[in-house]
Amino acid sequence: MNTHKICMLGTGLIGTFYTMTLHNLRGRDRVHAIYSRSQERADKFAKEWGIPKTYTNLAAAIDDPDINIVVIGLPNDQHLEAVKLCAAAGKAVLCTKPLGRNAAEAKEMLDIVEKAGVFHGYLEDLAYTPKTLKSLAAIKNGALGRILWARSREAHPGPHSDWFWNKEMAGGGAIVDLGCHCIEIARNFIGKEVRPLEVMCWAATQVKPIDAEDSAIGLVKYANGAIGQFEVSWNYRGGMDLRDEVAGTEGNIRLDHFLRTGFELYTGVGLGGYVAEKAESETGWMFPVGDEVHELGYPHMFADMFGCIDNGAAPMESFYDGYIVNAIIDACYKSAQTKQWEPVQLDVWRGSNDITEGTQYEYYDEQYYLIKTEILPDERKKIILKDKNTGEITQKVIDKAE
Amino acid sequence: MNTHKICMLGTGLIGTFYTMTLHNLRGRDRVHAIYSRSQERADKFAKEWGIPKTYTNLAAAIDDPDINIVVIGLPNDQHLEAVKLCAAAGKAVLCTKPLGRNAAEAKEMLDIVEKAGVFHGYLEDLAYTPKTLKSLAAIKNGALGRILWARSREAHPGPHSDWFWNKEMAGGGAIVDLGCHCIEIARNFIGKEVRPLEVMCWAATQVKPIDAEDSAIGLVKYANGAIGQFEVSWNYRGGMDLRDEVAGTEGNIRLDHFLRTGFELYTGVGLGGYVAEKAESETGWMFPVGDEVHELGYPHMFADMFGCIDNGAAPMESFYDGYIVNAIIDACYKSAQTKQWEPVQLDVWRGSNDITEGTQYEYYDEQYYLIKTEILPDERKKIILKDKNTGEITQKVIDKAE
Amino acid sequence: MNTHKICMLGTGLIGTFYTMTLHNLRGRDRVHAIYSRSQERADKFAKEWGIPKTYTNLAAAIDDPDINIVVIGLPNDQHLEAVKLCAAAGKAVLCTKPLGRNAAEAKEMLDIVEKAGVFHGYLEDLAYTPKTLKSLAAIKNGALGRILWARSREAHPGPHSDWFWNKEMAGGGAIVDLGCHCIEIARNFIGKEVRPLEVMCWAATQVKPIDAEDSAIGLVKYANGAIGQFEVSWNYRGGMDLRDEVAGTEGNIRLDHFLRTGFELYTGVGLGGYVAEKAESETGWMFPVGDEVHELGYPHMFADMFGCIDNGAAPMESFYDGYIVNAIIDACYKSAQTKQWEPVQLDVWRGSNDITEGTQYEYYDEQYYLIKTEILPDERKKIILKDKNTGEITQKVIDKAE
Amino acid sequence: MNTHKICMLGTGLIGTFYTMTLHNLRGRDRVHAIYSRSQERADKFAKEWGIPKTYTNLAAAIDDPDINIVVIGLPNDQHLEAVKLCAAAGKAVLCTKPLGRNAAEAKEMLDIVEKAGVFHGYLEDLAYTPKTLKSLAAIKNGALGRILWARSREAHPGPHSDWFWNKEMAGGGAIVDLGCHCIEIARNFIGKEVRPLEVMCWAATQVKPIDAEDSAIGLVKYANGAIGQFEVSWNYRGGMDLRDEVAGTEGNIRLDHFLRTGFELYTGVGLGGYVAEKAESETGWMFPVGDEVHELGYPHMFADMFGCIDNGAAPMESFYDGYIVNAIIDACYKSAQTKQWEPVQLDVWRGSNDITEGTQYEYYDEQYYLIKTEILPDERKKIILKDKNTGEITQKVIDKAE
Repeated sequence: MNTHKICMLGTGLIGTFYTMTLHNLRGRDRVHAIYSRSQERADKFAKEWGIPKTYTNLAAAIDDPDINIVVIGLPNDQHLEAVKLCAAAGKAVLCTKPLGRNAAEAKEMLDIVEKAGVFHGYLEDLAYTPKTLKSLAAIKNGALGRILWARSREAHPGPHSDWFWNKEMAGGGAIVDLGCHCIEIARNFIGKEVRPLEVMCWAATQVKPIDAEDSAIGLVKYANGAIGQFEVSWNYRGGMDLRDEVAGTEGNIRLDHFLRTGFELYTGVGLGGYVAEKAESETGWMFPVGDEVHELGYPHMFADMFGCIDNGAAPMESFYDGYIVNAIIDACYKSAQTKQWEPVQLDVWRGSNDITEGTQYEYYDEQYYLIKTEILPDERKKIILKDKNTGEITQKVIDKAE
Repeated sequence: MNTHKICMLGTGLIGTFYTMTLHNLRGRDRVHAIYSRSQERADKFAKEWGIPKTYTNLAAAIDDPDINIVVIGLPNDQHLEAVKLCAAAGKAVLCTKPLGRNAAEAKEMLDIVEKAGVFHGYLEDLAYTPKTLKSLAAIKNGALGRILWARSREAHPGPHSDWFWNKEMAGGGAIVDLGCHCIEIARNFIGKEVRPLEVMCWAATQVKPIDAEDSAIGLVKYANGAIGQFEVSWNYRGGMDLRDEVAGTEGNIRLDHFLRTGFELYTGVGLGGYVAEKAESETGWMFPVGDEVHELGYPHMFADMFGCIDNGAAPMESFYDGYIVNAIIDACYKSAQTKQWEPVQLDVWRGSNDITEGTQYEYYDEQYYLIKTEILPDERKKIILKDKNTGEITQKVIDKAE
Repeated sequence: MNTHKICMLGTGLIGTFYTMTLHNLRGRDRVHAIYSRSQERADKFAKEWGIPKTYTNLAAAIDDPDINIVVIGLPNDQHLEAVKLCAAAGKAVLCTKPLGRNAAEAKEMLDIVEKAGVFHGYLEDLAYTPKTLKSLAAIKNGALGRILWARSREAHPGPHSDWFWNKEMAGGGAIVDLGCHCIEIARNFIGKEVRPLEVMCWAATQVKPIDAEDSAIGLVKYANGAIGQFEVSWNYRGGMDLRDEVAGTEGNIRLDHFLRTGFELYTGVGLGGYVAEKAESETGWMFPVGDEVHELGYPHMFADMFGCIDNGAAPMESFYDGYIVNAIIDACYKSAQTKQWEPVQLDVWRGSNDITEGTQYEYYDEQYYLIKTEILPDERKKIILKDKNTGEITQKVIDKAE
Repeated sequence: MNTHKICMLGTGLIGTFYTMTLHNLRGRDRVHAIYSRSQERADKFAKEWGIPKTYTNLAAAIDDPDINIVVIGLPNDQHLEAVKLCAAAGKAVLCTKPLGRNAAEAKEMLDIVEKAGVFHGYLEDLAYTPKTLKSLAAIKNGALGRILWARSREAHPGPHSDWFWNKEMAGGGAIVDLGCHCIEIARNFIGKEVRPLEVMCWAATQVKPIDAEDSAIGLVKYANGAIGQFEVSWNYRGGMDLRDEVAGTEGNIRLDHFLRTGFELYTGVGLGGYVAEKAESETGWMFPVGDEVHELGYPHMFADMFGCIDNGAAPMESFYDGYIVNAIIDACYKSAQTKQWEPVQLDVWRGSNDITEGTQYEYYDEQYYLIKTEILPDERKKIILKDKNTGEITQKVIDKAE
């Protein structure tokens, strides 16, 4: 039973979620060192989570000989530097999303870790939610047939720290923050071996006084003809809207990760009880989440990462995947400017280069393709056919007996 | 209590739904004449619904002196001719969706009825569903604040008659058939006085052996910065997926018209009982609809139309609206070809020409705009601010006492 | 096309709902006279709904020669008197729920109308909701197999008029007010020909300062072994909870009539907009109903009643049904006192007297009954069997090949 | 970081679920020994889960000096013997539900472990689901006010092993198997310190060829006036119906643990793909569960148990709770026979003996209690009042201005 000692970089919300996941529920791995630029925040975090060591020097934290895994939970503009130090120290490195602020940064990180030969994982938690994992298994088993469309939506009232709202530090706005999830979720549904060809993206600053976009919608066209669709917003009211849908020739799946999970609560007085200072929005119908980190995929994500480290295997999400996502995001930002479809520029592509769209028409007989079968109310069957030669479309009604 | 005698043109699914709506549930108006090219179909329809007169001659049907309202339930390529005859006969004319196969046809119809001075209604039933009407009232009351985004989705396994699949007769594929609903629903949510400026559309023939698109996704940008989004498909498995969403600065609405309406049924043997010849797909979990025409808006639609005829008022949906929809669809088809945003060409526009986007930043104090307020777990308040002059984004935490 | 002129007795909430149903949406029938003890209320009501005549004398209203149908929308303690006058006047009479305050009153009303030979309808709207009607059709078709269990729940924060809270005027509390719906819904699901044998009921005054019960739960045992379950409360917070469930040997149905109907709305500012005086509970997530009278079954109920009057047929719900419900309620009140199962006393019973419970064990082979089949993860089949002679229960696992 | 070595008794479904929970997702504790009467099953289980030791002798398994915790996953009739051996060996003992086949057995187990001074946990997993735990926290915070009603429902098509269907081995039917969950869930919601006073229960063998009940409904009355309601069935079609509801004076909660958790899937071909031998019921709409053991509460349950063992604390669910549940079940079986309310016989009761029902009428003014406030459509306020002295109920309407 291997156990790991982790160095956590960052004491913000994501560092807290990661540490909560690792330390809760009888986990065997432990955060052994915490890094923050502020000694005060490091101390507070260490005390809360029972972490033996604190650091305010990044390189020293990463070089700590006790730890073998580094988890990067820093603002986007600090990922590259941390990755460099991890590679130099020969430590396994797990980086929060997005990998880089753009594809160039992500590519550099990928090159660095691959050259150094260190284990690298891309902490795309939403690809690991239990619902998503079971959906991916169903898709792999053919339950939906050929995948045609995937929609991923993430919308909420905006992030909690100032740096997210700073275009330079974050690398963008809602697309970089939320779209990175949506893009990789759709990519998993459609198939990671299928090449993303081009994107079309609308982005706007509809509400907030910021330079970056607070809302965006994007389409990603894949080599097999499938389409990925993402919708992101920092202007959404009503909670965190985290929904995915995927449809294929034989079926579809709908996932709601947060707002409708079978947990509904009405309170006339508020969750905190009769205390007066509670916000007005704490009354009425609410949709709590049972175990937040679990619904968001953190435990299954770390189980994959650490299990792969133990077994010398490749995780479901690596820096390579982070790079692909950044490349798609880059094309989105370009498309939002040019108002055209823009190609996804991939300097590295390790999937299939097949661009045959999957369509095979349904055979009816030597003369016809079948367009549709429909049972009529009188139980006769109507079929709509296309003549293979003339292209003419006709319908005929068949008695039950046939 | 005015009552009306109606001439129904067409005995297909839509003619049946319209007649069912009018004749059911103690309605006072009656279909008095039915037209079909086939006497056999006309006779059968007349017998089923207790209609006194049948016609196989279009002009004769429309000219019947007993009737004062004509309802067009014909294939798309026959709308224009029927409208001409109605205008010539001075009859009120209600036309099913889409109005024309393209904006030019729709514009011609609009000009004809306006010149003739006859009442004209556009039978966009989904703008009239009880849920949609109540949503529109809530939006008008300001419940959602400024509207930012509307999504309308209609997807099913494809239409039931051959002419829908014929690009020439229908004027297109899934966009013309289903997108016309989605576009007008979003337009109602965003505000019919707000000008649609430009569109971006992806369309593909993913599955069916046809010339037209069987799947499409479109974005419609409005003058106030709002975005309308539609998704249509003839390849959807699992029933009729008919969902709308609309979000604004203060709230959001989600509507499910068909698959999740509070009616859930599981059967191990099928809805028709133990009869063996029933289809396999009739077992398992199902989501029936209580009263189909009601959920689809037909009764409220005709109540508006006939009430307006009685009162000399304009209906919620007129040929003018049908024309706007066709103009947006034309731009969609162009965009799907050029792979760029395409302007919506409107020869007639009767709404506002204001193109000021609605953004007003939230005031914090003389120096700052407010980006976000968040209550921290320790009940202190974090605020994220933007300096009006420098543009710098900062956060600060305020104690409860303040 | 027969039309009817109705005399409405009562200007309260139920009279308003009934009139709204009849006058809205192009209905052909009209409320022609309105009765209230108060001339002021009668005038106001008449003006609002365009009703030609007003009455403050009950007998005069009913005797008005223009009207042929009387609808009783009065407090429970006035039903009997109104029924007597209708019978004497030879008018068709439709009475709101519950029919009487107890079975004796209901029986007297049934005898009176039957003796007079006038048409009588019991306005049990919830048996007529579109979802309920479609469910009943599915059940009739065998979709659920043999019905085993029906649950009907109605709970809200309490009725809107003082007389409901007065045990003497109403005949009881939440059971008489809400349980009458639940009992008749379950009876429809289980089968109206199946005799209700005995009941067990818990009733309590949990919150309100009243003499009658504000909460109750009851079980109704039917002759075929099926069980009906009702839950009623005047203490429910969060809206009107109106849910039915029914399960049989082959399937189940779940209905939600009000709170989850595919219409979800979040507002941070309230449905009435920015107006300050709106209640706090008007913000947050809400579940509006599209068309309230339709969801509650009123239009389909009156269509049945008036159609039956036109055709000389018996409606789905007559005074006889109202009497059965009152008899079950009487047994409930007795059981709540005696804390035992109490028999349902029926002086009139027109259904089946069969008390054979429906169980037929599933045949496996000559030696065994089949208890259960289960597919194991390795795709082998496990069967659990009961020996017909020894009664011994055993399991065996069968390979796929068999 | 304490870790534990566990001896698992039993290789059936529950032993598998428990072991899966402990060994999955980076858990630190390990099943170290597995006991089965069959060496073959023990070997197979040990191989599948990487368990070092196997036993076919119960006492030897429990006495193994390597292990410090014993988990009982045996048929109900073997719990007592196993508990005796654990107590004799001084091992911490965790027993699956129900604790005993009846209260006498449960009481004996409680006495044994308390006398021996060993740690004892009652593995009532459904009290530990993340949704339930968060609900309990909300209730504790006062979000629902005073609890009035709790409903817990568990229904499915019947258990998977023969011994469950054997009344002697199991101690009963669906009540013992499923009702034990429901009773303890409701008890948690209502408050474990509140004494259960009496029960009323209906039980029947509606479908299966067995001696025990396959369906039951029960009511449990608590000392504070709250009512617990359970519904259990082995005849349910459509999956595992696992729903809880709880309502209080200020709000309500609805939980769906299995069938509607935000995961919906439609497949026309089945989850296993195109393989022909898959069952017909694998097509159509389905409601998978993301991570089954998590939704069922197993990880949080063991985290509580092992954490308490480490810290010398008492777990949320102990043998004492198991005993209370058995005592309530005994009263249910008696009530099903006598057809009366039966008292819950408790030889040990460690909660409150207060039997004051919680009702406090709402104060309006010196003369009146408030029954209800209602906002009228014209924004005036209607209040319904009860005179404290005369008991008379009246209503009055107040203008906005007041």
